[in-house]
Amino acid sequence: MPQSEPQHREPAGPSRRAAGTSERGEATRDRLLDAAEEVFAEMGFFRASIAEITRRAGVAQGTFYLYFKAKEEIFRELVRQLSHDLRRALQEVTAPVLDRRDAERIGLETFLEFVLHRRNLYTVMRECEFVDPELHRWHYQRLAEGYVRGLRLAMARGQIRELDPEAVAFALMGASHMIGMRWTYWNKQLPPQEVVDSVVTLFLHGLNPAGTPAKER
Amino acid sequence: MPQSEPQHREPAGPSRRAAGTSERGEATRDRLLDAAEEVFAEMGFFRASIAEITRRAGVAQGTFYLYFKAKEEIFRELVRQLSHDLRRALQEVTAPVLDRRDAERIGLETFLEFVLHRRNLYTVMRECEFVDPELHRWHYQRLAEGYVRGLRLAMARGQIRELDPEAVAFALMGASHMIGMRWTYWNKQLPPQEVVDSVVTLFLHGLNPAGTPAKER
Repeated sequence: MPQSEPQHREPAGPSRRAAGTSERGEATRDRLLDAAEEVFAEMGFFRASIAEITRRAGVAQGTFYLYFKAKEEIFRELVRQLSHDLRRALQEVTAPVLDRRDAERIGLETFLEFVLHRRNLYTVMRECEFVDPELHRWHYQRLAEGYVRGLRLAMARGQIRELDPEAVAFALMGASHMIGMRWTYWNKQLPPQEVVDSVVTLFLHGLNPAGTPAKER
Repeated sequence: MPQSEPQHREPAGPSRRAAGTSERGEATRDRLLDAAEEVFAEMGFFRASIAEITRRAGVAQGTFYLYFKAKEEIFRELVRQLSHDLRRALQEVTAPVLDRRDAERIGLETFLEFVLHRRNLYTVMRECEFVDPELHRWHYQRLAEGYVRGLRLAMARGQIRELDPEAVAFALMGASHMIGMRWTYWNKQLPPQEVVDSVVTLFLHGLNPAGTPAKER
């Protein structure tokens, strides 16, 4: 699972240095970010306006520009926050788990909780593909890097099968993503236990019927 | 894998009846759809304009309105086309395959070919989440319905493990989706054979090392 490595994180915009240094400045910036998260999730990036963001944040429209240059900039900052928070959440729960097979269940459950409780930020991340494709790609690559490290280690320890670790990372990320969309995002609740159990069994043992010896590729 | 069932397909807009009945009318409509596919994929739905679509289609701007009421309508028609074509492609290759485990490999390979050759339509489908979330959801539900039917049949035949079939369908769709994004969509080529082999082994046998007896859940 991903480590947070601040040195690889995209730099915050110049606005942070310009206006965000005082405590009060940080509080205003956070209010703008919270409002933007709501507005982007409800209206979508392209329909959203800076006027609506400042209205909800309860600040004058001109105040926005003390912190962010444009609608794109606050959007990108939200995506970076989401990416960082998701990687930290996954890292925290999976790092202490010694067996990769247990880490897969815990990682899936943590991801689904994240989608449930950070629903707005998750919408923003998905729309990022159409606002800033490079940043969208960066997020998935960073997420996959941590996943690949965990898989390689588990392969070296003989806990899991030797497979292309990047292929496995993207396949499992995709599976979690779609389960999150179908149950957590559409229905606004965690999937039933039998859904989580089925997915974990699929990850660990595959479709082949129980008792059938697993053949190599 | 999905069956095409025309009776469940969303109805085409009234424009089809109004102007699309003659052969020449159909040809113009197809030119507009081809142009729209290009424009939406390049510029995104929100930046695209009807003027740009008609310019590329080589027709007067007014002609657009003989076929479609608005930018939203031609966008939705493209999504319905993509959804139908993808389900038909999967159905055609998987229907004659008797063992579900072989069908999984063929289905994955067919999906990756589809993303490679219908790249623009695939972009349109993903942006649909932000243009018409209901239609986006309809597409994934239709795709999953066919998948679930195939999985249930294979479970009844003892070819695959008894699991929640909808959970398995969404997990495997998600895995294929993310492999398609990482290799086919980003790199504009099919993934290396070892990636496909690793994903198929993961689907069939899971992460548990070869030789370890698969335990139930």
